[in-house]
Amino acid sequence: MDYVAEFEKKGKLAKGAAKKMAITGTKEKNNALTAMAEALLERQAEILAANEQDMVKGKANGLGQSLLDRLLLTPGRIADMAEGLRQIAALPDPVGEGLGSWLHPKGMRISKIRVPLGVIGIIYEARPNVTVDAAGLCLKSGNAVLLRGGSEAIQANLAITKVLTEAATRAGLPAGAIQLIETTDRQAVQLMLKGNKYLDVLIPRGGAGLIKTVVENATVPVIETGTGNCHVYVDEDADLAKARQIVLNAKCQRPGVCNAMETLLVHEKVAEEFLPPMLDALHQAGVELRGCAASRALYDGCAVATEEDWATEYLDLIMAVKIVRDIDEAIEHIARYGTGHSEAIITESYGRARKFSAEIDAAAVYVNVSTRFTDGFEFGFGAEIGISTQKLHARGPMGLAELTSIKYVVTGDGQIRG
Amino acid sequence: MDYVAEFEKKGKLAKGAAKKMAITGTKEKNNALTAMAEALLERQAEILAANEQDMVKGKANGLGQSLLDRLLLTPGRIADMAEGLRQIAALPDPVGEGLGSWLHPKGMRISKIRVPLGVIGIIYEARPNVTVDAAGLCLKSGNAVLLRGGSEAIQANLAITKVLTEAATRAGLPAGAIQLIETTDRQAVQLMLKGNKYLDVLIPRGGAGLIKTVVENATVPVIETGTGNCHVYVDEDADLAKARQIVLNAKCQRPGVCNAMETLLVHEKVAEEFLPPMLDALHQAGVELRGCAASRALYDGCAVATEEDWATEYLDLIMAVKIVRDIDEAIEHIARYGTGHSEAIITESYGRARKFSAEIDAAAVYVNVSTRFTDGFEFGFGAEIGISTQKLHARGPMGLAELTSIKYVVTGDGQIRG
Repeated sequence: MDYVAEFEKKGKLAKGAAKKMAITGTKEKNNALTAMAEALLERQAEILAANEQDMVKGKANGLGQSLLDRLLLTPGRIADMAEGLRQIAALPDPVGEGLGSWLHPKGMRISKIRVPLGVIGIIYEARPNVTVDAAGLCLKSGNAVLLRGGSEAIQANLAITKVLTEAATRAGLPAGAIQLIETTDRQAVQLMLKGNKYLDVLIPRGGAGLIKTVVENATVPVIETGTGNCHVYVDEDADLAKARQIVLNAKCQRPGVCNAMETLLVHEKVAEEFLPPMLDALHQAGVELRGCAASRALYDGCAVATEEDWATEYLDLIMAVKIVRDIDEAIEHIARYGTGHSEAIITESYGRARKFSAEIDAAAVYVNVSTRFTDGFEFGFGAEIGISTQKLHARGPMGLAELTSIKYVVTGDGQIRG
Repeated sequence: MDYVAEFEKKGKLAKGAAKKMAITGTKEKNNALTAMAEALLERQAEILAANEQDMVKGKANGLGQSLLDRLLLTPGRIADMAEGLRQIAALPDPVGEGLGSWLHPKGMRISKIRVPLGVIGIIYEARPNVTVDAAGLCLKSGNAVLLRGGSEAIQANLAITKVLTEAATRAGLPAGAIQLIETTDRQAVQLMLKGNKYLDVLIPRGGAGLIKTVVENATVPVIETGTGNCHVYVDEDADLAKARQIVLNAKCQRPGVCNAMETLLVHEKVAEEFLPPMLDALHQAGVELRGCAASRALYDGCAVATEEDWATEYLDLIMAVKIVRDIDEAIEHIARYGTGHSEAIITESYGRARKFSAEIDAAAVYVNVSTRFTDGFEFGFGAEIGISTQKLHARGPMGLAELTSIKYVVTGDGQIRG
């Protein structure tokens, strides 16, 4: 089947499935999610064999070690995927939630009700676990999902989708509720980007390049996820012991994720006391340091930070450091270089805690807390489909509620206007 | 100034103004809105003179009567615009509203807080009152606004923007909070569509052509507004007296607006009793009728409805009519041809009222109520910037809350992850 025919067929089927999913009950959806989890475990041999084909091809094509690691499935990783589905089944169903109702002066009741978005397109890269996560979250929130994973993971994605769809339809969900675009041709992605006829929203999950392509070319509404150039600002009134713990945690606990700190900003009044031992500890932890002139004067092992460093999301054990005159310079630096993801201040000053919280424009603003907490699980949403860095529709960790829209139902007895 | 330089200059200024607007208090914003209302009245001679230039040019260019009417300003219309600003001043401020807060198991508090979107771009057509409405709503919700009106109304828009910005800055709002793109060249719109560097969201207000252009070409997130191919379905258990009132109201009270009915669907069991007098009444009210074969058999003055009629938003005294077998056919027809705006069922059947409410996928679903109520004022939002027909971010009438985003503020005392 060519990619145009594939998209038309699957788009149409998804649209029909979305209509049925919207009125599928919580119990049916949860039963399907549980059945999907069981099927993943029961049929893991198929999935592992398919993944092995991807791995062989990936090695032959010279994929790097970190990409191969993301691609790799193991019985443990499949068990995690199944456990993820069970957790989604255990979450409250967002669909049908009443978000307020009121009486119009003429007597009819206006009710605002949470409904599914419809058909969600997910465009992602190497990690096959996204196939399971995304399918689970989209189904629980009453949507149909059209998946398009990276070509490196195509065999695993095909196997996983087969297992999931068979389990879901056997459990009573409509055919077409979960579908994978099988064409690995890039033109298949182009069709999704312009597929307003079938898709209600697109969520790209992956690196900056993928997200940029989607944002710049899609006519379907997009939820932008991911890029996090996050800062920790150590204020003149910081508790320096807390600051040290938080900086180490924000930079080193998991440097490859979007909520890790990339640049440390330090007030000049505490720089001399705080920075040398702090930078030494980071150096001991394997962090490569790049600093402003003033930081470099305080610590030898610090390379020169360039303009580019301030703007870089390293996603690695590399950190930029800058000494600032005051909180205003810190806020200005963050406004200029930050990506609106997660920003922290360490201070015991009530006034500056308030000021930073009010003036920083980011999805999550932290006072005396590590930036590492920006995450659907940590925020109590139970799961997440990504972290939105745009302001429209969703901002910050996106749970099930962010995969829904609303509808107004107005009930009366003959009211007319005028 | 060329259009690139203009956009760069105004974009940058808007971005700076947005930062200040986000932390401007309610009282300051309300004082500015009141001052803007007063200035419109005091300086109406300037505005009317500028509008006169547009009118002269429009007549010379052969603009149609309805376009000229939309372009025209009068002392009464300026008074309405001023009154609109006063009403916006009287609405509650959405910014800063707490949308819930909870404790993380480690003890820090996570608070979800309503914040402005940032810089809102409004692209609109002939009516100069949009300049005032949009500016008022965007400012009250703590945003900066970049306006781009139609070239036909450029003199009035320039005069209005001058009056508003002077009043706003005198009242203490930051320079750049309200700006108008003065270049009437279409390429200036292209810059806005791709202006992600400065704009957080674009809202097009105008005809289907404008909205399509914006949706298809923008990389800035768009809120799609407007198109309403709305239906009224008269069920077999309808109270036919109510049905008659509602149909007349939905079609005739103001046919040129998006929430007016375009197609009437009637259950075959009541068609013979209901349709002939109903269609006669519509005919008497000046409505041109286009029907399916079965409707035409019941009423002489009905032309043939083509496939195109079912899909058309007439925005005029024209109506399509179709007799359906049952509620499922009605729901299917609406799913196929509707635009997800406003859909009504007239029925005394509890079960079918529930079914229609649940299965129709539209911003507003009505039971025994005219579709004409889909409107920010009628829904109690006090004002509206448009009616969203997309599912992302906002759906249905958009009030002040729909011009905001959220931010999470997390306050703790040294919490780290892991």
